Amino acid sequence: MTELENCMESLIKIFHRYADEDGDATTLTKKELKKLMEAELPTFLKTQKNPKAVDSILKDLDQNKDDKLDFEEFLPLVVGLSMACEKCYMLHNKKTGKK
Amino acid sequence: MTELENCMESLIKIFHRYADEDGDATTLTKKELKKLMEAELPTFLKTQKNPKAVDSILKDLDQNKDDKLDFEEFLPLVVGLSMACEKCYMLHNKKTGKK
Repeated sequence: MTELENCMESLIKIFHRYADEDGDATTLTKKELKKLMEAELPTFLKTQKNPKAVDSILKDLDQNKDDKLDFEEFLPLVVGLSMACEKCYMLHNKKTGKK
Repeated sequence: MTELENCMESLIKIFHRYADEDGDATTLTKKELKKLMEAELPTFLKTQKNPKAVDSILKDLDQNKDDKLDFEEFLPLVVGLSMACEKCYMLHNKKTGKK
């Protein structure tokens, strides 16, 4: 597999590692999202001052208001964080003189 | 770094591996997108019957119609493919009797 294919497989595997914990393997409950974020996004979570950060992230991402996230609802979290990281990457390269 | 952090770093690195080839490191030209897809998504590209698949993908993703993709415009390609792959993953698990 290529690096990008591996990356897409990782996204699916990470989602299901937590979503599969309860009976419903298609969605992340709040508890499962919290476990996923604590394990996979600890650095990001530390920057969140709001102690209810996971609650408000779930609320933002939960399109159909069922208090759970399916894979499609989960992906914008990865997209949003990747975009923020890419902006830092570009700024860093600008500062260090890379094109 | 965690698996998800590695994955987001990969997305940024893959994008810039190709976007940085010409003078403008912030965007993928059609030529750069074609190289990226040939190297990183060969299996997907083989399933496309349209010989101008890359052209039509670029057109679909190019929100601001500048004939180039910035990182934000590129990400929906990864999201769309990941969602398609996840549907296959769920079907496969259903067939093989996993929850």
